[in-house]
Amino acid sequence: MTSDTKVYLLDLGSMALDGLMIYWMHGPSGPIRFPVYGVLIDHPDGKFLYDTGFDKSFIDSMIPNNAIQAERQTLQGQLDLIGLRASDITHVINSHYHVDHVGGNKHCKHATTVCHKCELEAAARPRVFEERGYSDMSFAPGLRGGAQSIGYGDDIYTPRFETLTGDQEIAKGIFLFETPGHTPGHYSLMVKLAGRRPMLFSGDACYTQRALDENIIPGAHVDVQASFDSLARLRQLAEQHDADVFCSHDPDSWKTWQPAPGFYS
Amino acid sequence: MTSDTKVYLLDLGSMALDGLMIYWMHGPSGPIRFPVYGVLIDHPDGKFLYDTGFDKSFIDSMIPNNAIQAERQTLQGQLDLIGLRASDITHVINSHYHVDHVGGNKHCKHATTVCHKCELEAAARPRVFEERGYSDMSFAPGLRGGAQSIGYGDDIYTPRFETLTGDQEIAKGIFLFETPGHTPGHYSLMVKLAGRRPMLFSGDACYTQRALDENIIPGAHVDVQASFDSLARLRQLAEQHDADVFCSHDPDSWKTWQPAPGFYS
Repeated sequence: MTSDTKVYLLDLGSMALDGLMIYWMHGPSGPIRFPVYGVLIDHPDGKFLYDTGFDKSFIDSMIPNNAIQAERQTLQGQLDLIGLRASDITHVINSHYHVDHVGGNKHCKHATTVCHKCELEAAARPRVFEERGYSDMSFAPGLRGGAQSIGYGDDIYTPRFETLTGDQEIAKGIFLFETPGHTPGHYSLMVKLAGRRPMLFSGDACYTQRALDENIIPGAHVDVQASFDSLARLRQLAEQHDADVFCSHDPDSWKTWQPAPGFYS
Repeated sequence: MTSDTKVYLLDLGSMALDGLMIYWMHGPSGPIRFPVYGVLIDHPDGKFLYDTGFDKSFIDSMIPNNAIQAERQTLQGQLDLIGLRASDITHVINSHYHVDHVGGNKHCKHATTVCHKCELEAAARPRVFEERGYSDMSFAPGLRGGAQSIGYGDDIYTPRFETLTGDQEIAKGIFLFETPGHTPGHYSLMVKLAGRRPMLFSGDACYTQRALDENIIPGAHVDVQASFDSLARLRQLAEQHDADVFCSHDPDSWKTWQPAPGFYS
């Protein structure tokens, strides 16, 4: 808990999915538009960015007429609101490597990229049902191709990637908790702040408050049992730390939060 | 391969599901009506019935205005077409214990009930995401309740249930192959006949021919990787045995098959 830590929520646009893909086995069916955001933690040890949204042109080529992202909703557009540049980011932390969470990574050229070891391995060698999720590899173009593209040889564990396993406190008051199931190496994030209850960012371990309340996992997942276990873990962490849970893609909750340039501290 | 074995396809009505529940991650979204059928194998060793459809009144109470089942599409209605009664069935084999596969079990009062050991255990102690699928327990009302209801004490492995593991040839030319993923203990069925290529009934390891061709698993599943492995296994079995695959819920294929009182031999 550091009194000089600030948390900014960066509005990175929106996408739409069928309700049956948001609420597995429940729905309702039909398209639901949901927000995509990043979490910037301005901390004495650095500027940490948890998830970087999508690259609109990439999504447009994959799913036409889906992504909405005004110029001010790009990563740089949001950073402009608080007087930063992408090159100021010291650490990019990815909850996981799906297309709507990594689009801005490539702009953070001076950042160490932090993720779970299993996540990098999954993205490097996706199974057939993982390929679509891991289709924007622009943040590490050599990850599947070997030496030339990123210049680190076949060793993908370069200084650019800091891979972790287990729960970790990566800086004072910044915690990563393992919440696999949606993907093999998913991390949720908790930030302790001086002036308010801890903020627990679920990432895609839980899309919405309804999903948390009604125990519904995302339609996209690699491990059903692990997904439910991670939902239970989020509830338990929230209780244990008296934390507020911020779900990843909740249109209703999003409207009630304070976006950048406002912040939590 | 016995020259006096006949296979009847029993038309047991239809239900509807959203396309995203039929074709996981693919869709299209929106309701798709699909057939539900049973496979009656008239064999020198007995009358084997693979899956027994749904109980319309049960489905009506669970999902109003979904199930369609004319009187002639009940189990007895179909057996009437070939001059049998439910009490003539010697063995009920369930691919798995979901509601649309067990509804007629309770009418086959003289039958041994054959299933995978893991399936009976899953139905006896369902996890939260299995409860809805395993909601029609009319075929074994004591399975979760203990002694009084079925009168066999807490030992659910009574003579009424014959639980198996591994691939099995349960009678000459009648094979069960493990195909888990949709449920923990799913069995597909192959029947060798004198006069035609073997018939490989996928059960819900594969809903439709499109799913087989395009490698798409059912929206309802307990294990994603196992579901894909079972799809691959079905393709491999079909090739190895030069078998025709009969998927469980394919509206298009169903129209091309020969329903009872016609038969395959």
